[in-house]
Amino acid sequence: MKVLILDEDYRQYQQLLLAEGVAADARCDPTVFPADYDALLAQPDLAARYLEQGGQTPWVQSTWAGVDALVTAAGAAGVVVTGVKDIFGPQMAEYVFGYLLSDVRSLSFFRAQQDSRCWSPVPPKTLVGKTMSVLGTGTIGAHVAGVAQSFGMETRGVSRSGQQHENFDVVGSADEILNVLAGTDVLINTLPGTEQTRGILNASLLDVLSTDATLFNLGRGNALCEDGLRNWLKVHERASAVLDVFAAEPLASDHWLWQHPQISITPHISAFSFPGDVVKLFLGNLRRRSRGDDLKYVIDLDLGY
Amino acid sequence: MKVLILDEDYRQYQQLLLAEGVAADARCDPTVFPADYDALLAQPDLAARYLEQGGQTPWVQSTWAGVDALVTAAGAAGVVVTGVKDIFGPQMAEYVFGYLLSDVRSLSFFRAQQDSRCWSPVPPKTLVGKTMSVLGTGTIGAHVAGVAQSFGMETRGVSRSGQQHENFDVVGSADEILNVLAGTDVLINTLPGTEQTRGILNASLLDVLSTDATLFNLGRGNALCEDGLRNWLKVHERASAVLDVFAAEPLASDHWLWQHPQISITPHISAFSFPGDVVKLFLGNLRRRSRGDDLKYVIDLDLGY
Repeated sequence: MKVLILDEDYRQYQQLLLAEGVAADARCDPTVFPADYDALLAQPDLAARYLEQGGQTPWVQSTWAGVDALVTAAGAAGVVVTGVKDIFGPQMAEYVFGYLLSDVRSLSFFRAQQDSRCWSPVPPKTLVGKTMSVLGTGTIGAHVAGVAQSFGMETRGVSRSGQQHENFDVVGSADEILNVLAGTDVLINTLPGTEQTRGILNASLLDVLSTDATLFNLGRGNALCEDGLRNWLKVHERASAVLDVFAAEPLASDHWLWQHPQISITPHISAFSFPGDVVKLFLGNLRRRSRGDDLKYVIDLDLGY
Repeated sequence: MKVLILDEDYRQYQQLLLAEGVAADARCDPTVFPADYDALLAQPDLAARYLEQGGQTPWVQSTWAGVDALVTAAGAAGVVVTGVKDIFGPQMAEYVFGYLLSDVRSLSFFRAQQDSRCWSPVPPKTLVGKTMSVLGTGTIGAHVAGVAQSFGMETRGVSRSGQQHENFDVVGSADEILNVLAGTDVLINTLPGTEQTRGILNASLLDVLSTDATLFNLGRGNALCEDGLRNWLKVHERASAVLDVFAAEPLASDHWLWQHPQISITPHISAFSFPGDVVKLFLGNLRRRSRGDDLKYVIDLDLGY
């Protein structure tokens, strides 16, 4: 099978594949390969440019979770896209609970007390009995909700279909979203970037949350209505937001989000595509393709995930 | 039933009981009540002084998890002691994972990056595949281990009997401790204060851990050999310790532990006796006693827990 790697980490991917006996062409620039390939292992944006420039392949294995940059080009070219799934849930859970528990257990306060050699036994807060709602009940959202249950939280989910899932006390459909989110203490957005999710985190949605709620945006930057967030934080001084994704990345250095006292910013690292993990997943699909079996993690290009 | 409260928070306990229709005498000073009571709701140290001074009661409900200060006096006086159980596991888990995830997800680093308006997408570390060992497989230790499993950690336990438990991949007995702990990445001590646990966290135990291990002492301060800890941290510069309990509390302001760069100190707050929780538990036992049923959470005074 003739394989092309198109990724910023192409050297690492090439070495990892070679170690498994798979030789592959590899570049970061999609314009230099007008050839045909049996498979691409590629960043969605680079794969899209490859296809738009007439590059041929029947299948693209994305190296990223979010494939929105690729769906249009892949649909037009009739190309199968497989995503990266099952490896981001644990990372997202560590991110979410890192921020939640650091707050609940007052780590900064006790660090300052230690620096002052001061013994101040202030009672802790707790997550027990708090409500977490998750937008998106796929492998990532469901994993985060499962960990929330182990911390004694009530869990609610919102998905397109509203199909129930054991990691959620209740799942509502997109139509029911405001009812499901009412009074939520922690809201996690893990939704993929589609037309339906653009601006979904807006003023009317934020208004139904608990007045001291924490919003996590881990899905796509354009899901967030920034003006809505600013107003919500202004009215609810105990509310807060943890943002990992932005409409334009990197976030411009003069953007107001950076220095808002109720906002924590991370540079799109809540779930990281480790090449070693992605290669394992790709090799599994490569074997399936060689045997003529169905690929795993196939993206529905109409839904966009 | 004639009830006496002896606790620093006696006013709050008295109000909570009164709200449930139970009137009680209440003080912080044990010397002023030479009378007989049907039940004490008390701090272990104050209950011990009450008994030593000739105070009479058949039953003490402790307001704290650790009852080591009371076992000798209670044994001598033939008094039944009930402990505080089932409510500390979730608090301890929040404490442990607050510290672990804050480190794994580099919260301080990203806070500093945000303050500098700097976009630096550094890959995260993870707890997945790391090993957590817990000394003590009772309700607290088992709860922490269960949460560790939900974060994809391998879990090992050590208990007196070595009896297996579903929240642990393996449980070893006290004799097997060094084998069980070999290569451990995170060690949690939740053992009660008894003669057997004094100095258990010593140089030879620390030596078998991973070279970048994190030690949590949440049990009793005298479980830790401080010189052993100091040497271990000196030899293993990536090792660290999170200490919540100390041989003498409050920790003296000139103690070397406060300013060691590899040590985090908290003032005995990893699990906090919230009077509302303790009162619920006491009222349940009060009802059992009125009906002549067996009490719950009875301490084995020989074992000390």
